[in-house]
Amino acid sequence: MKVIKFGGSSLASSTQLQKVLSIVEADDQRKYVIVSAPGKRFDGDTKVTDLLIQYARQTIHHQDTTAVVQAIIERYAEIGHGFNVAEDQLTPIFETIRNLPNQTYADNTYLMATFKAHGERLNAQLVAAVFQQSGLNARYLDPKDAGMVVTDVPDDAQIIASSYDQLARWADTDQILVIPGFFAYNRNGQICTFSRGGSDITGAIVARGVHADLYENFTDVDAIYAVNPSLVEQPAAISEMTFREMRELSYAGFSVFHDEALIPAIQGDITVNVKNTNHPEAPGTLIKSTREPNPHYPVTGIASSSSFCSLYLRKYLLNKEVGLGRKILTILETHHISYEHMPSGIDDLTIIFDEHQLTPELEKTLVAEISAAIHPDEIYFTHDYSILMLVGESMRNRVGIMSRAATALADHNIKLIMVNQGASEISIMFGIHDRDADQAVVALYDEFFK
Amino acid sequence: MKVIKFGGSSLASSTQLQKVLSIVEADDQRKYVIVSAPGKRFDGDTKVTDLLIQYARQTIHHQDTTAVVQAIIERYAEIGHGFNVAEDQLTPIFETIRNLPNQTYADNTYLMATFKAHGERLNAQLVAAVFQQSGLNARYLDPKDAGMVVTDVPDDAQIIASSYDQLARWADTDQILVIPGFFAYNRNGQICTFSRGGSDITGAIVARGVHADLYENFTDVDAIYAVNPSLVEQPAAISEMTFREMRELSYAGFSVFHDEALIPAIQGDITVNVKNTNHPEAPGTLIKSTREPNPHYPVTGIASSSSFCSLYLRKYLLNKEVGLGRKILTILETHHISYEHMPSGIDDLTIIFDEHQLTPELEKTLVAEISAAIHPDEIYFTHDYSILMLVGESMRNRVGIMSRAATALADHNIKLIMVNQGASEISIMFGIHDRDADQAVVALYDEFFK
Repeated sequence: MKVIKFGGSSLASSTQLQKVLSIVEADDQRKYVIVSAPGKRFDGDTKVTDLLIQYARQTIHHQDTTAVVQAIIERYAEIGHGFNVAEDQLTPIFETIRNLPNQTYADNTYLMATFKAHGERLNAQLVAAVFQQSGLNARYLDPKDAGMVVTDVPDDAQIIASSYDQLARWADTDQILVIPGFFAYNRNGQICTFSRGGSDITGAIVARGVHADLYENFTDVDAIYAVNPSLVEQPAAISEMTFREMRELSYAGFSVFHDEALIPAIQGDITVNVKNTNHPEAPGTLIKSTREPNPHYPVTGIASSSSFCSLYLRKYLLNKEVGLGRKILTILETHHISYEHMPSGIDDLTIIFDEHQLTPELEKTLVAEISAAIHPDEIYFTHDYSILMLVGESMRNRVGIMSRAATALADHNIKLIMVNQGASEISIMFGIHDRDADQAVVALYDEFFK
Repeated sequence: MKVIKFGGSSLASSTQLQKVLSIVEADDQRKYVIVSAPGKRFDGDTKVTDLLIQYARQTIHHQDTTAVVQAIIERYAEIGHGFNVAEDQLTPIFETIRNLPNQTYADNTYLMATFKAHGERLNAQLVAAVFQQSGLNARYLDPKDAGMVVTDVPDDAQIIASSYDQLARWADTDQILVIPGFFAYNRNGQICTFSRGGSDITGAIVARGVHADLYENFTDVDAIYAVNPSLVEQPAAISEMTFREMRELSYAGFSVFHDEALIPAIQGDITVNVKNTNHPEAPGTLIKSTREPNPHYPVTGIASSSSFCSLYLRKYLLNKEVGLGRKILTILETHHISYEHMPSGIDDLTIIFDEHQLTPELEKTLVAEISAAIHPDEIYFTHDYSILMLVGESMRNRVGIMSRAATALADHNIKLIMVNQGASEISIMFGIHDRDADQAVVALYDEFFK
């Protein structure tokens, strides 16, 4: 049995849904179909999820929602009419959209979660109707009926482990089950969503729960590429990669497959196949627990992300002071801030953060509290900071990767602010200036893939 | 005014002491002479400090000390007789040696400290007598009279800051003051020593206290070399280096000048000149607060040390867990263990320790406690671990150093277990296997100095 997930662009129109239908029909192992909300049909189009966010905001602010409701309904109507779905099946969908403001919500975060979740929820109902209309033995399965229960965080829920046992009851299905991605219900029956792009997560949870043989994740690219295709023309496609490689590349910005979706896949040892709805015959990229080393291409992927900043501090005899690192980390913990890395010299320490966690105010507070606790000789934040990752299982136990990488970067006059190798055997991490990031990625790509 | 310190080999015999006398006579600014205990006269000889340690152990175990007492006395007698020092000046020295066991000691650690300290104490008295005999206006100055008070740790004392004010009273001296290195007294008047090789520390403390213009540190090499001379024939001498460079190189094993002696030198901004007693006309090495960058030689020194071990741990989603690093560091702090570095990957963390802090028992405890606290997927210690340091102020803001270093190491097939650059701007740190360490140092030397 296979779990198969379609992204928003695969479900953006009746034309796209026709391709989805053909893909599902082509393999009778494809029993669990996870659907996103309809995405963009063309450049400049608006995703249904974004329309729903607008609808929620206007509702909260008691503004006129006529236009946005109309726009949302039209998206579903276009798809339904394209497959001649009967009006009595479409009307309840339209009514649900219109009635969203009339439900009771604990607060606006729950309201927002429910509005957003309906992009997927109604699309799954519509897709089930289209499948039935096209002669498939299909039905809509709500996350509640599937047994998926999540933590009570309306916009960043986590699956509760007992859900897997509930999902296992759906393991031997004759029917095709169409399940909405992105959301489930907390223990009080309220809708909570995963983080954005969370349909991937639903797919991985279902795949683990029903012990699927494969989790096919259909999107709009032929494969995951070794490097961002906006930087390099026709970059090398990754035919297979390990979960660890995917995770390290996600860290620095690879976003084809949702980082959090890797967790259930790893836990259930479910191989993931990223494929293209528009080009289903392409083999795509397999993400799995292990793979054969590739002696010709030690590097699997290269990524960079500018969403980091660093806190530098210098204090004489820093490395002789027991408890100094702990004092700093306790301060961070007090403010609920996780750090990414903490390279240290003899008398120096740099702490690298995900920038999204910080505000100018919070940075000032941290500098003040750390200064009071450890009396550094120097302390300051730096924001012009990108992390560049070179990732590959085949780098393990190889000599010379650092030499090639550092030389390629030096040849392009790229200054290394930080180099971190050693914790992970399958990656090297460089800290560079934001302005150098794109050039650095291309330089490394040319070195390791050409 | 200059503070001038002589190491053990410079004071090992009357022949050596003659050189010391000439050096002191050659410059009337040399007013504060810090002396070590007599060192080795030839390969296979025993230092007086080691004889005193033997003497202390035999005393503690109530063994016969006749031979060792005789051996110690002969060392001082040879020097005294070489300069025709009157017997009535030598007799009290010999008597003090014989009477060491008859004093009262709080415990054996204080006994050991007092025995060891007398290597310097009696040598300073003897050197003062020799200087007087040779017509110099010199006198012995005991650390107690100098006002040096230290913390109550018999074998690893630290200077108490108020000592500097006391020392300042000796700032304008007409006489040459001969001061024993290595020890001072705690607040109860008990002898406590600095860590081994601590005469350098005494010299730096005195230099800071009297606001010396220069601290000349005489030893038995012409200069500090860019690399260990046992690995490379006639290596480049370092003509000048900064305190930070010295400190980073000391960290990985450069031992010509005692690491702890840098603290008072830095605090008092006292330039240190490492010189050779056997070749005093050589300019030696200047260690100072700043220096001009050298565009031709970005690297100042290369060192390696095998006294490290590492604890590796892997845990899925490690970087998302707030407080995980703090939990680990709290456990280390409970056991009074300081860590050196903590490079982290996405799901991996390595902690590097000074191996001397650990025992197999303690390692087991740490693994057990960390496992209980954070449930890692994998955790283990590695002992085959050397740290290789490439240090140079002129590396600051230079592109291409990592490239050259990594390529030189790769060309010699040396595997990099860890690379750490970024906290300090003036050094790059590599983790390599012990077996590769010597070859790695030579490879880097050839790259940056040939």
